[in-house]
Amino acid sequence: MDNFIFHSPTEFIFGRGTQKEVGKTLKRYGAGKVMLVYGGGSAERSGLIKEVTDSLKAEGLDYVTLKGVKPNPEADLVYEGIAMAVKEGVTFMLAVGGGSVIDTAKAIAVGAVYSGDFWDFYCGKSTPSAALPIGVVLTIPAAGSEGSCKTVITKKDADGLHKISIGSELIRPRFAVMNPELTMSLPWFQTACGVADMLCHIFERYFSNTTAQLVNAYSEAIMRDIMDQALTLRVNPDDYEARADIMWAGTLAHNGLCGVGKEEDWSSHRLEHEVSAFYDVAHGAGLACIVPAWLLFVAKRNPDMAWKFAINVMSVNPQGFDTDHIIAAGISALKDFYHDIGLTTSLRELVGKEPDIEAMVKSLEYNMGPSLGKYVPLTMDDCREIYRLAL
Amino acid sequence: MDNFIFHSPTEFIFGRGTQKEVGKTLKRYGAGKVMLVYGGGSAERSGLIKEVTDSLKAEGLDYVTLKGVKPNPEADLVYEGIAMAVKEGVTFMLAVGGGSVIDTAKAIAVGAVYSGDFWDFYCGKSTPSAALPIGVVLTIPAAGSEGSCKTVITKKDADGLHKISIGSELIRPRFAVMNPELTMSLPWFQTACGVADMLCHIFERYFSNTTAQLVNAYSEAIMRDIMDQALTLRVNPDDYEARADIMWAGTLAHNGLCGVGKEEDWSSHRLEHEVSAFYDVAHGAGLACIVPAWLLFVAKRNPDMAWKFAINVMSVNPQGFDTDHIIAAGISALKDFYHDIGLTTSLRELVGKEPDIEAMVKSLEYNMGPSLGKYVPLTMDDCREIYRLAL
Repeated sequence: MDNFIFHSPTEFIFGRGTQKEVGKTLKRYGAGKVMLVYGGGSAERSGLIKEVTDSLKAEGLDYVTLKGVKPNPEADLVYEGIAMAVKEGVTFMLAVGGGSVIDTAKAIAVGAVYSGDFWDFYCGKSTPSAALPIGVVLTIPAAGSEGSCKTVITKKDADGLHKISIGSELIRPRFAVMNPELTMSLPWFQTACGVADMLCHIFERYFSNTTAQLVNAYSEAIMRDIMDQALTLRVNPDDYEARADIMWAGTLAHNGLCGVGKEEDWSSHRLEHEVSAFYDVAHGAGLACIVPAWLLFVAKRNPDMAWKFAINVMSVNPQGFDTDHIIAAGISALKDFYHDIGLTTSLRELVGKEPDIEAMVKSLEYNMGPSLGKYVPLTMDDCREIYRLAL
Repeated sequence: MDNFIFHSPTEFIFGRGTQKEVGKTLKRYGAGKVMLVYGGGSAERSGLIKEVTDSLKAEGLDYVTLKGVKPNPEADLVYEGIAMAVKEGVTFMLAVGGGSVIDTAKAIAVGAVYSGDFWDFYCGKSTPSAALPIGVVLTIPAAGSEGSCKTVITKKDADGLHKISIGSELIRPRFAVMNPELTMSLPWFQTACGVADMLCHIFERYFSNTTAQLVNAYSEAIMRDIMDQALTLRVNPDDYEARADIMWAGTLAHNGLCGVGKEEDWSSHRLEHEVSAFYDVAHGAGLACIVPAWLLFVAKRNPDMAWKFAINVMSVNPQGFDTDHIIAAGISALKDFYHDIGLTTSLRELVGKEPDIEAMVKSLEYNMGPSLGKYVPLTMDDCREIYRLAL
């Protein structure tokens, strides 16, 4: 176990009906003028936005509204939000939605108190030194952004599409309101993509060269439970216990708990970011294609954790089989799981055409440099091969 | 899963050499005048106190020292510390030690800013409304007090001995410095008692009537790892990885993670507090006697979790056996584990004489009222029976 700092100060307010108290929570956190950020139709149609704004009004909290966040959120809406925050004197961001909404709110939070272009932070020209505080009402368990210090934004410019992630303790939400009931009305595809995303947040920490018996043990327990409860939800999407487990697991997958003392490897996320930036597919759906291909590739050079994963997470019975067979069976079981929850593991099928691997590799190199990864360091040739394996 | 709030804002600074930076951390948290609280000889002899005070001096931090905390810490030293804190204008508490030292620092933290008697908080006459901030350098992984909002203090008065626990978010440490190397020099008995204590912090949350598949799954993983690494340390007390796992598990066992959404049952702790208050034995050693007796008693009325515990934690093979046999085998395996790490499971052997069960039951009733427990509610007659089973 390497030295580490674990600090997860977000207050998680979890359970039935909790969204109706968000005004009180904002008041407790000293909110003045609130910017309510959300996506659009479904949050309005379900009555959630009304519940939230009623709760704000009941506490006498003034607010402005920024709607229209889309999956793979783009810089344009961030600029709009920053302008609004400055003009309206916003002092507290409230994201009502999933990762895209929260990441947009985080970007506005750092941009609204910065004199330059917020993209400076994403392209590495500057580091945030202040941010508006952020609260969350979570509606999609997936990105883990409700408890993380990360944000991912996509920007188009003359050099192409750039989907970039940054991290800062300043943008970790102060609180996250999490009612599993709100997730029951999600289209199944979004539930499945969320499951694929949170699993991958654990994979990126689990596949590591650091010795970490305890962290691996509880990470494996969380991964097994996510898969088990996802299969329960496939049959009964209204199962509260399964919704609650998936929601809480999504937070634990990304608040740092599963990575303490470990060298992490975010290659699958990097590889996928190009896919969703180029083809505007859901991030989780892209991961279901990338992860098995990545694991197949890296396991040949570094079989240890792939072997453990097969046995301890995918329940492959190792008796009488050699390492290669065990690993292959583990990857096959993982692909079966993705198929069982309705996701394809074929990149070609996902994007509906022959993906432009060369363009994605070129963009990856532009964004990440000539290599990536720690569990197995990857050259751009390796990345090309992984995209091919994912076809 | 019940509704819950999970808030664990303590910053955990974990790993080799971290104690040498505690001055910088205190500075970062805005410490002015520090009160350094510790036990005595071993922390001085090992050079730890010098490392800590050197680190304070290097940052120009002024401090006063309160030493002499003993296991099952008593009110007398708390009064002394409160007087010193007021007189010296202390603004930050730094506990260097295990649970007893941290709990003493917590009691001083609330007492120093209260006009009345600090014991008012413990006997239920008042509730803390302010506290000095607290930092920790942990030397004994056991009580979990470094990440918890709890403190236990013992007071003698005309009515007898009172060992009472209270909780308040105000006394949750701001940071905890955790270097597993510092625990290598612990006498084996203290390591073993710490293991028994942290396991019990999970038991008190695990044995519950609330459905909690995910929380149970990761709790089981943590319990299995604690037992496995304790047996490793029994052979090789200097195994860094095992020390690190035990230290981190001790924190996770008591920062609330293993209890989210569950109805908890602290009966074993309540029952043991009388034992250690009456006979001044180590809390963990008392738990090793109480827990198997408690489990034997409650499993007859509520077998569900005892059955799960036997199979999922104690690795009892259920095939071909009925529930009663499986549970008995689980309890037997737990007792074997305590014996393997050098702890007795006999109360008579622990206290070295026939314990005065009637006096303990009387004191328990005085402190806790006529019943305790949730997994199985216990009358005082039940408690008497559990003490007898523990003999």
